[in-house]
Amino acid sequence: MKLKQLSLAAVALALTSGVLAQVKPEDEIRYRQSVMNVTGRAFGPMAAMAQDKAPYNKDVVVKNTAVIEMMIGMPWASFAAGTEKGAPTKADMKVWSEGAKFKEGAEKAQKAVAALGTAVKGGDEKTIKAAIGDVGKTCKGCHDDFRLKEFRN
Amino acid sequence: MKLKQLSLAAVALALTSGVLAQVKPEDEIRYRQSVMNVTGRAFGPMAAMAQDKAPYNKDVVVKNTAVIEMMIGMPWASFAAGTEKGAPTKADMKVWSEGAKFKEGAEKAQKAVAALGTAVKGGDEKTIKAAIGDVGKTCKGCHDDFRLKEFRN
Repeated sequence: MKLKQLSLAAVALALTSGVLAQVKPEDEIRYRQSVMNVTGRAFGPMAAMAQDKAPYNKDVVVKNTAVIEMMIGMPWASFAAGTEKGAPTKADMKVWSEGAKFKEGAEKAQKAVAALGTAVKGGDEKTIKAAIGDVGKTCKGCHDDFRLKEFRN
Repeated sequence: MKLKQLSLAAVALALTSGVLAQVKPEDEIRYRQSVMNVTGRAFGPMAAMAQDKAPYNKDVVVKNTAVIEMMIGMPWASFAAGTEKGAPTKADMKVWSEGAKFKEGAEKAQKAVAALGTAVKGGDEKTIKAAIGDVGKTCKGCHDDFRLKEFRN
């Protein structure tokens, strides 16, 4: 699925039937955590491969990349204003006070994932491993800046 | 993505590089909860449409069905033996003591989602709404039997 489709899906979901409008902050927090968890779980084995800590497995790379491509557009709308608290969260308040920088990080991650998708289609292991590394850097960059070490209320 | 591909992905992930073998029960619990959360979030607006509580939106149906098709194969491996506890969970101990019945429920859900995917490709609103209803029934059936009302430790 393409990045543009994902963004459209997010917008369409937000506009549909007031469902998001009724959602509580704690639900938004749980949802974005869930998306991050599923994304991280798909990425973990690929990161291990890119770092030569695990044997390269093309089938896993193809399948997990598809998961990450689907997930990467999903959490951002759930960091909307009003979701700063409501359940234990590791989201730094800078997500909201430095919103432009956070948005930039989210966009970098989405671009890196799109590039990974292209690399995986190409099929060259070295290129794919480099693209996995780039995705990892965008994840880490944003986590370093915007994710607390411990949960806060 | 097809059901068989999803199952293969789960198996491939489980077999890859001992990643799952190193995973802690609390991580498995959090992961399966995350998958269920993301799946439910995608399904919610569709259920509302099927029940005529929200206007039918084809784009949302197509996009959310793709999410559900990807997610529906993902939680089951994380109900493995040894993941009965380790973090707050709503999983009834019957998941493990009545494993065959749980597996049957999981398979029913996956079949209903595959049928939904077929219906969505077909494009007929009435058929799609019926397929959404069928998916909802398989979700509810398993939740009624195997999901507790409150978290346990």
